[in-house]
Amino acid sequence: MTGFAFADTPKPPYFAVIFSSRRTGRDDVGYADMAAKMDALAKTMPGYLGIETIRSREGATITVSYWTDEQAIRNWRTNAEHRLAQDKGKTMWYEHYELRIAKVERAYGGPPAPIKD
Amino acid sequence: MTGFAFADTPKPPYFAVIFSSRRTGRDDVGYADMAAKMDALAKTMPGYLGIETIRSREGATITVSYWTDEQAIRNWRTNAEHRLAQDKGKTMWYEHYELRIAKVERAYGGPPAPIKD
Repeated sequence: MTGFAFADTPKPPYFAVIFSSRRTGRDDVGYADMAAKMDALAKTMPGYLGIETIRSREGATITVSYWTDEQAIRNWRTNAEHRLAQDKGKTMWYEHYELRIAKVERAYGGPPAPIKD
Repeated sequence: MTGFAFADTPKPPYFAVIFSSRRTGRDDVGYADMAAKMDALAKTMPGYLGIETIRSREGATITVSYWTDEQAIRNWRTNAEHRLAQDKGKTMWYEHYELRIAKVERAYGGPPAPIKD
């Protein structure tokens, strides 16, 4: 895994999907494969703005994905391949997760300029 | 650091402060001390609902704190001790950060129930 990359989001308003999860520890390889596949698929979706994610060594993850509007989030949620991944997540990979849909109203960056990987 | 803990948030609407950052690598001890101090201080603020945070080995962090309303976020932002921490963050600890204020509109949890640390 390379260093952390900031999402290059536009001026608000836009939407954030805050996904926090703790893994079961089962099927690490299958999970990693699917995570990479879903990252790549999300980038092709209309209204996708970017993603920021960090995984801990203990198998917890916070992923925040950014979207232009709620319809874009619905399209992503109901995407057929993504649905399969969600089902596998519920039955195999996640001990627990919390998913929050939020409207970003204000945003600020700090010193000095975003550094992209 | 113990395992990841989910924030026990109420039914939406409420507010999220999404803080993603990449560290300079300078003053690790001072940073860790201040981070612990600010975590403890945030918990005492009116309108605080919870926090979820993950740090990577490379010094990147995503911290999402949850608040009842925007006034609570303003109070936290302008808290005098927190202001000192913010200044130190800008001049010493953070290579870059992005701060996003968002209104959580919907939330779902997954299998089966939140497990608290």
